[in-house]
Amino acid sequence: MHHKVTSDNPIGIFDSGIGGLTVVKAIRAALPFEKIIYFGDTARVPYGTKSQVTIRKYAADDTAILMRYQPKLIIVACNTVSALALDVVEKVCGSIPVIGVLKAGAGLAVEATSNNRIGVIGTQATICSNAYACTINELDPDIHVVSKACPLFVPLAEEGLIDHDATRLIARDYLAGIINQDIDTLVLGCTHYPILRRIIEETIGPAICIIDSAEAVALRTRELLEESGLLNNSGEHALPHLMVSDLPQKFSMIYKLFLGSELPDVELVEV
Amino acid sequence: MHHKVTSDNPIGIFDSGIGGLTVVKAIRAALPFEKIIYFGDTARVPYGTKSQVTIRKYAADDTAILMRYQPKLIIVACNTVSALALDVVEKVCGSIPVIGVLKAGAGLAVEATSNNRIGVIGTQATICSNAYACTINELDPDIHVVSKACPLFVPLAEEGLIDHDATRLIARDYLAGIINQDIDTLVLGCTHYPILRRIIEETIGPAICIIDSAEAVALRTRELLEESGLLNNSGEHALPHLMVSDLPQKFSMIYKLFLGSELPDVELVEV
Repeated sequence: MHHKVTSDNPIGIFDSGIGGLTVVKAIRAALPFEKIIYFGDTARVPYGTKSQVTIRKYAADDTAILMRYQPKLIIVACNTVSALALDVVEKVCGSIPVIGVLKAGAGLAVEATSNNRIGVIGTQATICSNAYACTINELDPDIHVVSKACPLFVPLAEEGLIDHDATRLIARDYLAGIINQDIDTLVLGCTHYPILRRIIEETIGPAICIIDSAEAVALRTRELLEESGLLNNSGEHALPHLMVSDLPQKFSMIYKLFLGSELPDVELVEV
Repeated sequence: MHHKVTSDNPIGIFDSGIGGLTVVKAIRAALPFEKIIYFGDTARVPYGTKSQVTIRKYAADDTAILMRYQPKLIIVACNTVSALALDVVEKVCGSIPVIGVLKAGAGLAVEATSNNRIGVIGTQATICSNAYACTINELDPDIHVVSKACPLFVPLAEEGLIDHDATRLIARDYLAGIINQDIDTLVLGCTHYPILRRIIEETIGPAICIIDSAEAVALRTRELLEESGLLNNSGEHALPHLMVSDLPQKFSMIYKLFLGSELPDVELVEV
């Protein structure tokens, strides 16, 4: 599992589906010369509703697909895998460093809070794993974490209901119980949630700071590449290499919704 | 793929997930002495958002799992597979008869309509395949079919939002365009939708007759078993044998929502 690594090797990113494209967008904004290999397991999405055994098996598969491209770094864009199977990814990666969205988001939230009260929203599996609360409390045991699973946010985002009263009603139901807990920071613990950021902001009000884990992971990636001297300064922009395990009908609509641009070529990979 | 069949052999039923449990419920009500083997591909659910190639591969896998139990009949409870891959199932089944929810629901709708105008709702893949309209028009070319994909109905049903204003708003958005087309019959072309039947009825009003494809498939199954002399009249009730490819956390909550009773033993099967 070892290969020779230079700054020219790509950054590998995977997610259970297309939610991780928000991470691709954040990485391209922060690190414009990096080559990106993205794998979205669209044939087996979503992971968030599945069991831990299944999630761990899928995580190993996804990592192995990216390792074929000799990445210098692997980013786990999937919060569910970050929460339940990061050790599986690290084992498959050998000496290649791994960054999970979860730890990156948790770290930024700890820096952002002033009153030591942080809210976290995510899929059922991410929230039930309690991984955000554990990671935050490893960094600072005095912080109080309030969590809430918001399972309908992913389908609402994918259907493009980003300005619909049904989404507002559901957001109010989901978020009422955590915004009355005096939090000053809210972690979007699912890569789909930035798509619904406007309605989430509207629901929680301006006093609560939102942590977007995609932006957090881009900051952490820059730090790690600078520390290890592996930052790509070539000055050459490359389009990301996109791979998916299935090409659903609405993929190009969703790609536009997530990245704001037309869909480039996409490679179909069997899992 | 041939095995000896008597009335004592089980009925095999499969679905992409747990939606097909509405078919199990309807079969048990209509045919109380039949043994039932159910497989739900919960590790790879949903099928409705995936490509045709992937759906056809999964359909072959699911059928092969049921064939191990020497069924006398296979019911495809998944509308997506009925629409896009029934021929694959029939090929794997050999001489064992196959009933798809789609044809059963379409047949009952044709019998029910008086004004020859039928509405159909289902997942994106089912509706885009145009399979309901084709099947209905094969039975009666004079019938006008109006279709609408309702992709959020599945997650709303699984989250139990069966009496929530967000579901009402989304139902109104989805159904407005088809109820103003003067239909007198509406086919619930997805096995999850009976869970939202009350809100759907409330939205379309009392003048439109709802066809539940789970009930339709139970009627068709009874006919076929009577014709072939394979009806089980043993007088012995048996619990259905349930198999799933993954056991998600909320499975028992969903089972209760769908069947109205506590979860029995469930076997985990690898796909």
